[in-house]
Amino acid sequence: MKPSIPKGTRDFSPAEMQRRNFIFDTIRGVFVRYGFQQIETPAMENLSVLEGKYGEEGDKLLFRILNSGIDFDEFKVESSKMKRSDITEKGLRYDLTVPFARYVVQHQNEITFPFKRFQIQPVWRADRPQRGRYREFYQCDADVIGSDSLLNEVELIQIIDEVFSHLKIPVTIKLNNRKILQGFADVTGESNKIIDLTIAIDKLDKIGIEKVKEELSEKGFSENAIVWIEQVLIKKGNTKEILVVLENYFHASETGKKGISEIENIFSTISNFKLQTSNLEIDISLARGLNYYTGAILEVKANDVQIGSICGGGRYDDLTGIFGLPNVSGVGISFGADRIYDVMNEKNLFPDFSSESTQILFVNFGEKEEMFCLKLLAEVRKAGINAELYPDRVKMKKQMSYADDRKIPFVAFVGEEEMKTGKVKLKDMSKGEESLISIEQIPDFVGRK
Amino acid sequence: MKPSIPKGTRDFSPAEMQRRNFIFDTIRGVFVRYGFQQIETPAMENLSVLEGKYGEEGDKLLFRILNSGIDFDEFKVESSKMKRSDITEKGLRYDLTVPFARYVVQHQNEITFPFKRFQIQPVWRADRPQRGRYREFYQCDADVIGSDSLLNEVELIQIIDEVFSHLKIPVTIKLNNRKILQGFADVTGESNKIIDLTIAIDKLDKIGIEKVKEELSEKGFSENAIVWIEQVLIKKGNTKEILVVLENYFHASETGKKGISEIENIFSTISNFKLQTSNLEIDISLARGLNYYTGAILEVKANDVQIGSICGGGRYDDLTGIFGLPNVSGVGISFGADRIYDVMNEKNLFPDFSSESTQILFVNFGEKEEMFCLKLLAEVRKAGINAELYPDRVKMKKQMSYADDRKIPFVAFVGEEEMKTGKVKLKDMSKGEESLISIEQIPDFVGRK
Repeated sequence: MKPSIPKGTRDFSPAEMQRRNFIFDTIRGVFVRYGFQQIETPAMENLSVLEGKYGEEGDKLLFRILNSGIDFDEFKVESSKMKRSDITEKGLRYDLTVPFARYVVQHQNEITFPFKRFQIQPVWRADRPQRGRYREFYQCDADVIGSDSLLNEVELIQIIDEVFSHLKIPVTIKLNNRKILQGFADVTGESNKIIDLTIAIDKLDKIGIEKVKEELSEKGFSENAIVWIEQVLIKKGNTKEILVVLENYFHASETGKKGISEIENIFSTISNFKLQTSNLEIDISLARGLNYYTGAILEVKANDVQIGSICGGGRYDDLTGIFGLPNVSGVGISFGADRIYDVMNEKNLFPDFSSESTQILFVNFGEKEEMFCLKLLAEVRKAGINAELYPDRVKMKKQMSYADDRKIPFVAFVGEEEMKTGKVKLKDMSKGEESLISIEQIPDFVGRK
Repeated sequence: MKPSIPKGTRDFSPAEMQRRNFIFDTIRGVFVRYGFQQIETPAMENLSVLEGKYGEEGDKLLFRILNSGIDFDEFKVESSKMKRSDITEKGLRYDLTVPFARYVVQHQNEITFPFKRFQIQPVWRADRPQRGRYREFYQCDADVIGSDSLLNEVELIQIIDEVFSHLKIPVTIKLNNRKILQGFADVTGESNKIIDLTIAIDKLDKIGIEKVKEELSEKGFSENAIVWIEQVLIKKGNTKEILVVLENYFHASETGKKGISEIENIFSTISNFKLQTSNLEIDISLARGLNYYTGAILEVKANDVQIGSICGGGRYDDLTGIFGLPNVSGVGISFGADRIYDVMNEKNLFPDFSSESTQILFVNFGEKEEMFCLKLLAEVRKAGINAELYPDRVKMKKQMSYADDRKIPFVAFVGEEEMKTGKVKLKDMSKGEESLISIEQIPDFVGRK
């Protein structure tokens, strides 16, 4: 029987790795350009750090680690007396945000605030696997913590624009503010039902306005309140018009007004320069599921591909409070590498990676030629060219088919004649042409490709 | 109470990440130059893949994942009826070699052999944590599978030499061959005790020759055999002399002779060119613990730092056999990033990373200046300079101390005057000098640093 991997997990082949690395390198490059610093945290966190941070549903989706040293037979006998912590105390990280909050609290005395950090690591969720949803996937997060300036929101929007411009994915950045959602709750007289409201609105795209209204009704929102919310939710128009309408709604909600002013500030700052390729628009139906957001929230959609959001984020005013460091405001975004990969694959946006793979294969003609080729190889590699010598003395046909399968653009033949003259016969595999050239000419010859 | 991380795991700060990335990037660069292709495998593997591959001790050190959907209360009641697979079916990978063997078997129809793959990922072991030993650590592996040519061994030795030359760590590469160890077992009449012999010899460095002899005696080696083994083990001299002595010992062991001829072949091929900075020597006391090795084995020691081996590897003739693909020979090496880090730290070998962090901080003087600076920032970043604007309108002193703490080499002041003239006052933080320059001059000015 062939071995297999756990469901919802994936192996990545060399071709997939080149594409994934291209995405990670692009994102990393932009983060660094904007002054963000990389950190990494362990795959395992104590359950006390993870639990209760992602809602009841999230707790169920944590992968828990069996404590080491547990003997299964003893375990069966003893389990009735065991506390849960006797069995499991650690879990795999579920996202990068909670470990980051833990990091900030734990290392607060070593950190210079505002702390602009980025982190690119896998996370694990015991979700039901389905198309595009995996149990192990990468997140690419950037957060600024310790500053409540809206310039941070502006900068993160610039970063999003820059990343997707580099990747050549046209996107729309949808912006909202939790304070506006709080405004809805306030003016409908349901200030304390903000979480119910958020959860319901968050589903608008998936279940439609009628089902959202049903859910609000079940949660105890009045008929009147629901009509009101519906009117605003289905409002179309440009950003300015929406804001005018909202201002009228929110005369009785200070929080709502604050939300409007924050959004206006961000829009006006950004209008000061131009985003490179992205649309930025307000979307008051945008809610985002996570409870810790308190200000701006945003989501990014690819314009030309039908797929969920490929980036998202928002401001949280008290994420580190749960770990004992209150009143530290932060704002962050997270790129979803897997969906970005799917978009780029569908739209054929990946560049040619051939110069990052082997560029020359030296054919192996036998012992004497091997020795000669090893010296050539060293020179060619020193010139910055990725090259290899076929390790086995096998038939030419097999070696050539290796070059074909690996898509190696040049094959070098070094036999008796070439060893004598110090030249190399180089075959351009795409054109089928052979050229006799000196060793010094190789880098130029290959580079011209 | 401050939150914490599981024992034996680590957070990596921005400064540590730059150093670690330098090591990973160097190793990755050399792997690619030699034609190796990157893959990644999931953190979790099925226990059926992992168990029984690392010996009894290794099985105990696997981190096991609780099956999802287990309810603890039900669990206590039901556990007496449970099979172990009801509780745990998956574990975290323990190394990169077994997942690689699983990968090769699972994807054998997509792979072009010989397959030169590299993999840089963390592994997890429930070892007792101690100085320099962690429960989560990175391995950097390169393997060639599907070729029994000794050129692969030669190439891996070149890779080791190239990596440590780049990192400026002087090293000694110790080479041995499992067939030579088998030769010992053969000529002492204990052919079937090769594993006992290997395990005992592997401890020579740690416990000394007397204890090794005791252990061999306990395992049933005759007095005569032990004397013989001791004589060879403590043999000093150059490679040639050692090989001559061994040839005399091994007249009765075909396997032993084969081992000598393999080592001779590798040495003579390498003598054909020069290693850049490494010493290569034969060490017949080198055993390496893992049972799957069948040919060349090697270990790398830093010459100037007292620490365990910083790289190791060897040839295995049947690693994929356990997964149903027999008779595929492979050879590989693994770099230990954590120990390499320690060596470089101790010897102060890391380069200056300041150009990879923020190079210019724009001081925030207020709203109007912010708007002006945002445009400057965009230009400066486009020119390839990492730059940021302090996000909050706070006192200069606080902003300057941020620049200090972050070790940002230049601070830009853009106030009323500068906005009028279109110039920027740039302060070189190390010299304390201020210069008034135009925006176009910034890249040159910063680059000259």
